[in-house]
Parts: sequence; structure tokens; C-alpha cells
Amino acid sequence: MAPPLAVRPVRARDREAAKARLDSLTKPQGSLGRLEELAMRLAGMAAGAFPLAVAPARMFTAAGDHGVARQGVSPYPQAVTRQMVRNFLNGGAAVNALCAANGLDLRIVDAGCAGGPFAAHPLLIDRRMGDGTADMTAGPAMSRETCLNAVAAGRGLAAEAASQGFRCLATGEMGIANTTPATALYCACLGLEPETMAGPGTGADPAMIAHKAAVVRRALAVNARALSAGDAVDALACVGGFEIALLCGIMLGAAEAGLPVLVDGFICTAAYVAGRAICPDLAAYAILTHASAEPGHRLAMARLGERPLLDLGMRLGEGTGAAVAYGLVRSAAAVYNGMATFSQANVDGKEAVEP
Amino acid sequence: MAPPLAVRPVRARDREAAKARLDSLTKPQGSLGRLEELAMRLAGMAAGAFPLAVAPARMFTAAGDHGVARQGVSPYPQAVTRQMVRNFLNGGAAVNALCAANGLDLRIVDAGCAGGPFAAHPLLIDRRMGDGTADMTAGPAMSRETCLNAVAAGRGLAAEAASQGFRCLATGEMGIANTTPATALYCACLGLEPETMAGPGTGADPAMIAHKAAVVRRALAVNARALSAGDAVDALACVGGFEIALLCGIMLGAAEAGLPVLVDGFICTAAYVAGRAICPDLAAYAILTHASAEPGHRLAMARLGERPLLDLGMRLGEGTGAAVAYGLVRSAAAVYNGMATFSQANVDGKEAVEP
Repeated sequence: MAPPLAVRPVRARDREAAKARLDSLTKPQGSLGRLEELAMRLAGMAAGAFPLAVAPARMFTAAGDHGVARQGVSPYPQAVTRQMVRNFLNGGAAVNALCAANGLDLRIVDAGCAGGPFAAHPLLIDRRMGDGTADMTAGPAMSRETCLNAVAAGRGLAAEAASQGFRCLATGEMGIANTTPATALYCACLGLEPETMAGPGTGADPAMIAHKAAVVRRALAVNARALSAGDAVDALACVGGFEIALLCGIMLGAAEAGLPVLVDGFICTAAYVAGRAICPDLAAYAILTHASAEPGHRLAMARLGERPLLDLGMRLGEGTGAAVAYGLVRSAAAVYNGMATFSQANVDGKEAVEP
Repeated sequence: MAPPLAVRPVRARDREAAKARLDSLTKPQGSLGRLEELAMRLAGMAAGAFPLAVAPARMFTAAGDHGVARQGVSPYPQAVTRQMVRNFLNGGAAVNALCAANGLDLRIVDAGCAGGPFAAHPLLIDRRMGDGTADMTAGPAMSRETCLNAVAAGRGLAAEAASQGFRCLATGEMGIANTTPATALYCACLGLEPETMAGPGTGADPAMIAHKAAVVRRALAVNARALSAGDAVDALACVGGFEIALLCGIMLGAAEAGLPVLVDGFICTAAYVAGRAICPDLAAYAILTHASAEPGHRLAMARLGERPLLDLGMRLGEGTGAAVAYGLVRSAAAVYNGMATFSQANVDGKEAVEP
């Protein structure tokens, strides 16, 4: 994809310097657990800059429709994607409430909802790649060219947000049926099986879940030739979605800008899996925010060797888990930036009682 | 304790009404997981009031010293309690950074640090019950009367905060050696064993942990007669601490005022265990915020049948875990208060595609 991706690998020395600072602060070493781990990661992303800046933050909730919805893989009608975009623009959805409560600026990206463009709105960004994807059980969900355009659009949005001064980006999505392409992406990129990865999504019953797994298997079979090369862009094109490819681009663009990017649940993590395959250095900039209640998410986490920050049984999407986890990112930075050292505070260390 | 405790039990109908509201909001039912559970609990505490108000919030970090410190149960010298209180007042500790990042107002309560009163300071509240407790391995840590005074002081602080308009209270502590009395309290109140409950605290090595368990066992034996009645006030007096008894009082006072109270880690949970024994209705108002890395905390959680909100490997105390979890409380209230219903937003529900 042009221009070529240029993600700066994080340096071990920035992480080590951050650990030395954390160990000098007035607390037993390591006693803030994963907040300290997070601060070390943020210091690596920031190339050792002090203080760590993680605000302001922008949430991109990207929406798109999916041809595979016609296979009956969701208990909600496709029209809900569009209705929920309007709900986002009107401020009534969960992600609105959670961005407001946790201090993130929210933008809604139409990556390709069925039914044509929306009327202009200050929160809406139009990056439509089509009027919903094609049905992946009959061929690729989109062409490779369209997929590259979606990724490029995401990279552009991330670059623009970075140039506007945002210091942390977050990802969320909306798209009726999109747990189905996400499941297919996990299978294509990580070698997982549709029957173990398919889950209830927004509330499918066991019969619908079994049907979903069969639909995913069919999509993988129909697209087998393109997928056989093991190229993540082909996987995104064949069994992904407009919003998924665009979110993959936002993640890559955040990494290119040296910014942390918060990955929401099941669908955003599928976009991350594709992004990591495209550019392994993305992993250093991505923060997996929460363990989705969608059962396949745990399997994917295990395969990736990742443990998300939160485990609250959430399975809504939209960016809701990422919004809640942003508070932990702010907390980690606040500790790192704001605490006094033992010597500054005249507090005795552990060695004070050692013989 | 006078005046008698009067905690209003929460009503099932408030919880049910909250569930009905949550189920009407534009999201699959239950898809926000534990945030929805939290919103239902908050609605019960608020007796069904709408909107839920959880701000402003006040953190009380209570400090005290412990006679048992002379038994060599902590790797830090006792002087650190006092040094850390100064660090809190100067704004340099982890709890300062985390209260600032998460929007809690912080007050430091001197419940009885060794070395006499501190100079007056706007953040400091003097509720000194003595110059550190007595060594619980030689008799009760404090008299029953002093313990009741400490609990009453905590109740008074909670009542005062409620009257000032605070809508959520949070608890934290500082006291070198205080994992030792906390361990003893768990054993006395929950029938757990010192050898399984004693842990590293701020960083004890295995030999010190074994010694800590022996110290706890000795304290329980020395105070066996008073403890045999199974009265939680006696347990707090014999093997508790000034800050622990005061925090127990803050929790009870929050419940009396109908306010949620955020319980921090290992030591605050011990205060909660005593409080729940004094008044079982406290359980409805207490939010166990995080799973401490201190191994005994998991055992206590299992015994209580509780699962804290966060699991970040934190083991610092001060209120740090409660401060981070306050973001989840604000998030739950924001969802409950701010989201649109399906009918308000003209979004189709699941039934729209059912035959």
C-alpha cells in the first residue's frame, strides 16, 4: 500500500528508562501491576518523551454493511446499522455515553453503510467504499483495490487526527452481521476453526451460531484461492468488511504516527489481527482493551498471547470497551508523570530496614 | 454503637425497574455486562432515583500505625507511614495522581500515626485514636471503646461528606505493617487460616511471610477469649487497626447515607468484612473494586462470593484501585442516564426479524 508503511519499532532502552523511573517513585516496585506495564509500553510508543501525553483522545466508530447479512447470521435486520449511525449522530448510543464519561472525542465514520450517503453532520466522516460489501459466500466481499482504499482512508484519518494534536486514538465499529466476517478473518489469519470461533454476537441462538459457522466455512472455501497466499490484505478483501479494513488502517496510521491505539472487542481485534499481519510493529502501539464476552475472542487472545486490560463481560462493540479502558491509559500516564520519587518525597525505601 | 446503625436495605423493585430501563436502551440486552450489573446496583442504592448521581466523589485515605510492626512483619520501617502521609499532603503519591486522573476529591485522615499529630493542612483530617496501636501479639491492638470511637469517627466523616453533596465515597489506607492485622481480621471474621492468608504485602520474602503467619496466629491466640464471642467490633479492636476501624465506619456511614462506597484492596476489604459482620446490609452499598495481587485477597473473595471489577495485579493500597475503578462507576451511570431507548431512537429491536 502506498505510501509505504513506516512504523518506528519501539526501543528497549525507552522501556528500561521508564521502568527505572517507575521504580524510583514512592511505591513498592511493581505494585501498580498492569498500570506500570502500560506506562512502560506508552513510554516506548512515545520514544521516551516525558511527560507521557495521552490526551486528547479521539474515538473513531466506523460503520459498514455486509452482504453476508442476507445469509441470516444476525438476529437484527440490516437496517439497524443505519439506524444506529443516526443514533450515534444524535448522541443516544452507548459509545456516546462512554466517550463523554471517559473524555474521548467521538467521530463516526461511514465506511459503507447500505442505503447511500447520510446527510452531512459535524460528527460524521464520509469514507464510503460502497453500499455494503458483497456476500462473501459468493466471492470476495470487496476487491483488493477497494480494500487498499479503505486501509488508506483509515491511515489518512489517523494521520489527520495526529496532526490535529490527538495523542491517543481508539477504535469501535457498527455493522449488522459483522461478527461473521470477523470470525472468518480470525480463521483466515490465525488458522482457527469456524466451529470454535463462531459465537452469539448480538444474540444468535445455538442454531444460528451453527449456521454462522457453516456460512464462515463456505466463505473461506469460496475464497480459498485468494486466501491461499496468506496475504492479510487479501483476507481483509475476501472475508472482511469496509469498516474492518478502515479500522485496520486507523490502527496502522496510529502506529505510523507513534500514537497508542485502543482496540475494542471482537471485531476491532480481527482488524488488529489483519493489521499485525501487514505490519508486525503495529503490536507495540496497540492496546487490547477488553476481553469480549464473545467466546471466540478468548481463543484469539490465547493464540496471540495477549491479555486485555478489562474483563467486564461486554459484547456491544461501538468502541464501548475501548472508551472505558481509556481511563486506565490516563491513569497509567498520570502515575508516570505525576508521582514523586523516594528522594524527592524524603520517603525511606525498603533498604532502610535491611541490615 | 450509638446512634444505632440505620441502613436502608435496597429494594428488589428498584433493581428490576433499572433492568427494565437498561433493556429498553439501544443495545442488545445485557451486552454491557458488568457495567449493567453495576448500574442496577447503583439504582438500588439510590432507591430508584433517576438520573443516577455518582459525582462528586470523595476518597478518604486513612493512615495509622501498628504496634505489631515491631515484630518485623514489613520490609519498610514504620517511619514510612508518616513520610507517606506527608507525600499525600504534598500531592506526590500514587493515590494523588489517580484521584486527579479519575475525578475524585482526596482527603487524608490521620487515624493514629506514630509520632504525634501533623501540622494542619487543608487535605488533612485529624481523627487520631492514639499514637499507633498496641502490639496485638501482646493483647488487643486497642480497647473496644477506642474501636467504637474510630468507627464512629468514620461514620461521621461519611455523613459529613454526604451532607456536603458527595454522591460516592471511596476508601484507601496507609499503615506500615497493616497487611498483618488485615490478615488477622480475615482469619477472625471468615475462619480463614493465617498460613494460607499471609502474603508478601509490600514485598516480604518467603521467610518474612512465614513469620507473618506465625505472628498472626499468635495474635489470634493471645486475643482468643475476646474473639470467641464472634463479635466483629471485638475483632476490629483486638486484631484491627485505627485506620481499619475508621474505614469500616466510613463504609457503614456511606451505606447509612445511601451512597455507594468503593472498597480498595486487601486492607480495605478486611475493613469491609468487619463492617458486613456488623451490618449485613452494608453489602448492598459496597463495590469491591479490584482483585489485589496479595494472594489472600482471592481466598477472601471466594469466601465472600464476590468478584471485584478490576484485576490489574495492583497491590499498593492508598485507594489506588478504588480510584481507577471509579471510572467504571461513572461509566455505568453515564450509560444508564444518557442512552436513548429503542423507541426514542427509532432503532429496530431483535424482534424485527423474528417471524
